[in-house]
This record gives sequence, C-alpha cells and structure tokens, in this order.
Amino acid sequence: MENSPSRSHRSQPGGRLDPYVDRYAARTAGMTASEIRALFAVASRPEVVSLAGGMPNISGLPLDVVGGAISELVATEGPVAMQYGSGQGVPELREQITDVMRLEGIEAHADDVVVTVGSQQAVDLVTRVFCDPGDVVVCEAPSYVGALGVFKGYQCDVVHAEMDADGLVPEALRQAIRATKAAGKTIKFLYTIPNYHNPAGVTLAAERRPEILEICRSEGILILEDNPYGLLGFDREPMRALRADEAEGVIYLGSFSKTFAPGFRVGWALAPPSVREKLVLAQESATLCPPQFSQMAISAYLSKHDWQGQIKQFREMYRERRDAMVSALEDMMPAACRWNVPDGGFYVWLTLPPGINAKAMLPRAVTARVAYVPGTAFFADGYGSSAMRLSYCYPTPERIREGVRRLASVIEAEMELHATFGTDTASMPAIRGKDYDAPGTDVF
Amino acid sequence: MENSPSRSHRSQPGGRLDPYVDRYAARTAGMTASEIRALFAVASRPEVVSLAGGMPNISGLPLDVVGGAISELVATEGPVAMQYGSGQGVPELREQITDVMRLEGIEAHADDVVVTVGSQQAVDLVTRVFCDPGDVVVCEAPSYVGALGVFKGYQCDVVHAEMDADGLVPEALRQAIRATKAAGKTIKFLYTIPNYHNPAGVTLAAERRPEILEICRSEGILILEDNPYGLLGFDREPMRALRADEAEGVIYLGSFSKTFAPGFRVGWALAPPSVREKLVLAQESATLCPPQFSQMAISAYLSKHDWQGQIKQFREMYRERRDAMVSALEDMMPAACRWNVPDGGFYVWLTLPPGINAKAMLPRAVTARVAYVPGTAFFADGYGSSAMRLSYCYPTPERIREGVRRLASVIEAEMELHATFGTDTASMPAIRGKDYDAPGTDVF
Repeated sequence: MENSPSRSHRSQPGGRLDPYVDRYAARTAGMTASEIRALFAVASRPEVVSLAGGMPNISGLPLDVVGGAISELVATEGPVAMQYGSGQGVPELREQITDVMRLEGIEAHADDVVVTVGSQQAVDLVTRVFCDPGDVVVCEAPSYVGALGVFKGYQCDVVHAEMDADGLVPEALRQAIRATKAAGKTIKFLYTIPNYHNPAGVTLAAERRPEILEICRSEGILILEDNPYGLLGFDREPMRALRADEAEGVIYLGSFSKTFAPGFRVGWALAPPSVREKLVLAQESATLCPPQFSQMAISAYLSKHDWQGQIKQFREMYRERRDAMVSALEDMMPAACRWNVPDGGFYVWLTLPPGINAKAMLPRAVTARVAYVPGTAFFADGYGSSAMRLSYCYPTPERIREGVRRLASVIEAEMELHATFGTDTASMPAIRGKDYDAPGTDVF
Repeated sequence: MENSPSRSHRSQPGGRLDPYVDRYAARTAGMTASEIRALFAVASRPEVVSLAGGMPNISGLPLDVVGGAISELVATEGPVAMQYGSGQGVPELREQITDVMRLEGIEAHADDVVVTVGSQQAVDLVTRVFCDPGDVVVCEAPSYVGALGVFKGYQCDVVHAEMDADGLVPEALRQAIRATKAAGKTIKFLYTIPNYHNPAGVTLAAERRPEILEICRSEGILILEDNPYGLLGFDREPMRALRADEAEGVIYLGSFSKTFAPGFRVGWALAPPSVREKLVLAQESATLCPPQFSQMAISAYLSKHDWQGQIKQFREMYRERRDAMVSALEDMMPAACRWNVPDGGFYVWLTLPPGINAKAMLPRAVTARVAYVPGTAFFADGYGSSAMRLSYCYPTPERIREGVRRLASVIEAEMELHATFGTDTASMPAIRGKDYDAPGTDVF
C-alpha cells in the first residue's frame, strides 16, 4: 500500500505512462491539453498583452451595491440561500430572467426557464439530451470553441456553414443540411450565435432571421440560439431574438456572465416544455441543483440595482476598447491583413496575409509579449489556420494599442521571412477531421 | 410564426405528445419524472412531516460570521471572486481541502484536487471520463439514488453487492466481480460510500477496509469513494479513508454540503494525476469553471471560522435527532419492522414486515402526512420494495417523533389489510433491469 501520493508522476506530459490509459471512455479520445494551452500559461504573465482572453471587464461593477445586496441576503434569507434548491432554479430569478429576455422581444414564461451553471452548462445539457455519438451539429464557420469542445465530448460530428459580414449565410446552411442528409447522417440542431459572434464578431442581419428560421422549420431542425452578448451592442437597440419569433423550434441560451459577472456561474436555457423537462432531469443528474446562493445573489442585484444602466456603462466601455483596437489595427497592421469592425461584443476576427499561419506564429507572438487565439481553435475540421481572434474586452485601450503594435511587428517579420524563403505554411491543405485546438478556458 | 409561447401544452403529462420524442439521445431513455416525484411535491407541504429529504439542517450556522466573511470578500477581492476562474478550482481552497481530508488520514497535494459543483458533479465527471454504454459500475445494495441516476444517464449497467451491518461484504464484492467478468462485461469502478451510508446508515468496518482495497487492487478495479458524511460520526473520530491507504487506485469525493452548506454547490474529487487531468478537461467542457464566488466564500469561511467546532455542533445536533428517531421507532413501530441504529450521518434503513410494499404504501403515508423514500429508489434492479429510507437530518426531534407516530399507524393499517385480505405486494418477484424510481432532488 502507498501511504502518501507519489510526487514523481504528478506531471504526466512526457513522463511516465498513464496507468488508466486503457480504461477511459471512448468520449475522452482527444481529451488532451493542446500545445496552445501551454502557451497561454505563459501568456498570462503580466508583461504579455493578452488579446486572447474572453474575460469580461467587470471593474465597473458597484462593489458596494453588490456587497450590500449579498450581506442583506445572508442576514435575511441565509438559511434558504445556503440550502439545496430546485433543479430548475430559483423561481424569482427565473421570473427576472424573463424580464431580461423581453429586451430582445421574447415573451416567455418562467416555467420554461432552466437555470444552468453558466450557459456553458446549458450547451452541455442540451447536447446530453439530444445527441448520440455520430449525430451532427451544424455550426457556423468559425464557431465558439467551448461549444465545439462539448460537441466533441459527446462524440458529435460538427458540420460548419459559412458566414459573411451579415452572419450565417442561408444558402450555406441549406447546403450543409443537404450534404449531411445526403451522407445519411442525422442533424440534431443548428448551433448559432446570432449577435456579436464569438469569434467572428459579426451579427446575423435582421432580414436573414426569418429565412434561417424558415429553413430550420421546414427541415425539422432545432435551433440552439446562444446569446451571451446580445445586450452588448454599441450602436442600436438589442436585435430581436430568433426565439422571439419561434417558440417551439428554438432553445435559447442566455447568461449573466457578460452583463453582470461570470464568477457566480449563472446562465439559463429557455426551452419548449417537453425539452425543458428533460433539461431539468439532466441538471439534477449533473449537479442536483445549480448554485442557490449565486442565483439569489444575482436576483438581489437585479432587484436592487439599475442593471440596465450598468449594461449601458459596459457597452460604452467596450465600445471605447473596440475603437482602440480598430484604430490601432488601421494604423499599424500590414495592408494585406483583413479584419471586421464589430458593432458589439468582444471580438475582432483577423485574416492574415497569404502564407502566414496563425498557429505556427503564436510562439513568436508570445515571445514578443502579445497573445491571441489562432483561428484553428474555432473550427472542428482543421480550417482557420490563416486567421485569429483578437479580443478587446479586457485590456485597457492603451494596452490594446500596445498589443496591436507588437502583433503588427510579429506579422511583418513573418511576412519578410515568407517573402525571403517562401515557406507557405498557411496554405497547407487543412486536414478535415483533425482535432480542433482546444486552448483551455483562458480563451473562451 | 408564433409570437408568444403556447400555454396549452405547458404541462406535458397526460397532455399532448412531445414533438421531440423521436429526437432525443438514447441516454434519455427512461429519463422521466417518476410517480414518486409527484408525491414528493405534495410531501413538501408544511403539514407533512418529511422523513424523505436529505437536506442538512444548517440553522446552526453563524450567519453573522458567514455574512461578514462574504462582505469582506466582495469589498477586498470582489473583482476576482466575480470573475471566471480556473477549471480546476481556486488554489487556496484546494489547499484547505487537503486540510479537511487530513482528518481522515489522507495526505494529498492540492494539485490533485478538482473542485466540482457539489460532489454530485464529481460523480458525473468521473462517470463521463470512464464509462462507455454497457460498462459496469459495482454499487452497494442499496446505493445512493443520485449516483444511480448518473450511471443510468451514462448507460452503465449497475451490479449491486450486498452490505451487512459492517458495510460492503467482501465476499459479495468478489462474487459481483466474478459474475460480471463471467458475463464478459467490463467493470469500470466500484462506487462505495464507506461512512454513514446513504441510504443504509451503515459504515464499512475498519478491519474490512484493507480487504476491500486488496480485492480491487488485485482485480484492477478503480474505487470511487464517495464520502459526504465522513466527519459526521457521533461516537468516534473520523474513520480512516480508503484513499488514505491507496493513492493510485482510489478517486475520493468530498463535499462541503453537509459540513458547511449545500447552497454554494462546492464539492471535490481527489484523483491520481492522470485522471485528475481528464477531470479538469471534463469540468471545463461542462461549466468552464466551478463557481468562483462560491469557492472563495467557502475559503473565507474556513479561514475565519472554527469550522471544526461547527462540525462538532452539527454532530451533536444530528445525534440528538438520531436518538429521537430511534427511540420513537422503538416505542411505536410494529414488532415486525427492523431497522439499524446509525452512528453517524442522516439515515435509518427500515425493513417492513413481510407482505408490505413501501412504494405502494407511500400515497397512503403522504395522506397521513408523513413521507419517506421507498427502498426501490436505491436499487437499479427493482429490489428494495420492502424497505424505506428514513432521514432524521432536517426535522426537529418533536417532528421526527410525530412523523414516526404517523408512519407506525400507516404500517399498522397496512398490516391489518394484509392480514385480512392477504394481498402480498412486497413479495412480488422484483423485476431485474427495471427502471429505478428516480424520486427527484428532494430526496438525495
């Protein structure tokens, strides 16, 4: 018997063999930390400007208001807030969630809301309820890295459909559906981020929305509408949600992580009643119940604070950072780079000049003290090597400008190398079916 | 298009067909709310004495201490506590968790601890990492209803091994392993609750522990040691954990739900390094990270309060309730009933006289304003119909006594009916392979 844990094999990578290697479930195939992850450990050092992370900037939250609301919660309802709760979530919070969704045109009943441990868990539970191994999920190209990880974990096949500046292209969706059906596969749902897309930064145009709904309705395909950023537009009122015009065929996911704070881990799913029942049972199996204290803390915050005013402040702050990034890109990036100008959310999607591979370049960027997420992280099929996601949500405008300066230098050096030696890594044929580069939670 | 959700089919049961019925994953088969669940909705009324629930009684927690610690947390570390955190959990809390485990003889490193959304999520993640459909998990007979739900959700086969007053019987474990192997099936792990078992109330005797470890070691079977109640013994120091004597072959699960409060949803897994890495990746996929605020709140509580003194208070309070239940049972139960006297934890396991079916009797008990959990909930194979779990953790001693009084009357009436008409429901052959009665989270 072993009386103390052996220190010698704490670090597995490159070390001794994993004694459990033959015993894991099939779904863990490829569940390994990618090399990108190790780089991000370096990128978290303070001297590196990280344009990689998707952490919201919550420094503007009124700590006195939050602290006061939570103190009062403990004093007046502590024994309830610290107790087990319903698997579906706190009823009062679910009511308040319907108020939040009303801002996007959704008229819903609190009975159809299921609270989740962040909207990440909602993606997990929906996939758990619907997907057998080999089922297809249609995703935008590119798509959210955390959702791709879930689909992979449930052994789904991801089929990407192209986007353009107006979001998901209806004809591309039709094509993806046709090709999947022709291959004899079953599509379980379309996973879409209509607003201020992560990572692409684009928004599904209002005039396209009825068409996307109609395609999915006529093909019998459920829509999973993931909408963490919908209230964070810079120049307009919130877009009307897909769910606002289709109650039966859409599961809508929301989150307090970007409009309030992520550390409470409270998101939600709004689902048709039959699906909602399954999600509650799945939630009970996964966690018994979502964190009661977190839910009641958020409920108290929503009751006691001008949360819509707070979101307005967040929008102004992110707009300033978006402006800083876009003007820095315009001032400093080589002419051959292309990027979009997002009008909400956290992200710019940048495409490199021909011949430059974003993933291969990352170690040099980190050495130059700037980090980003290579585009390959956002594809399930190995594409994206010539692109990267740049986030402007967390650093100050000054740091963003400095980060873009460093990145521009790195790209210029790559371009010179490429011009001199002609190494053309980015145009290597992408390998379909290859593992995507899961970069870890630093970069959701 | 539908502009508002239809109210007409909010309630599915007995109503219109589920339009998604053909689209769910195979793992949802049998994921339906049981009839017991509906009864427990009734049982939550204040006039019913619930001996069903497993809710800890946290009324003794010092709300001023907790409130003060959390206020200070918001004021001094709010932006960190409300931000995303590590998928593995807050490092300081993981250090403190190693102090908690040291009380049971475990010498571990914080690097090998993964924080989970309650230990329920730890059961889910371990099963996710290890079990393919058809894999076998060996469980005690009976076993924890919430774990059986997870195993079912991952399409595992559960093989039960008998317990006696000293816990899991080594020869029964050997027999279960032999039979499973003879059937050509793969055992992924033994799921065991060594201390103050839920629902059986028994504890694995110290002299049996080396034998259980040796059987699993020689058969190459991983042990999942679930230990939420280990510090809640009434008459002795904490038992030495299985994990204390075997680091490589045991995954140990712990929880703050019973020693502090469940509403924060913080539990943990201590696992060998290679498994721990998989669990972190699985956690990131499931939730990105466990609730940061909850973790830091518990960490602050552990730092600022005499948490061991608090656990001692809890033990005294639960001992008083155990005494109330056992003396009421002795005073009032028909002579043909049998039960154990637990020396820790929350539960008494009661066996009814021949011919009485606990599940069939439940509606009559609820009508008589007392609730319990029928034994069938704790078996994956339809056994347990002549038994029930009685919990003494939550009601006051007076209410416990009143609940036992009502229950004794119901049982007596059942016995009279049985004597008169000879209806012998409890001795109906149990149906192997039948769905277990998932009663919902009221009764974990």
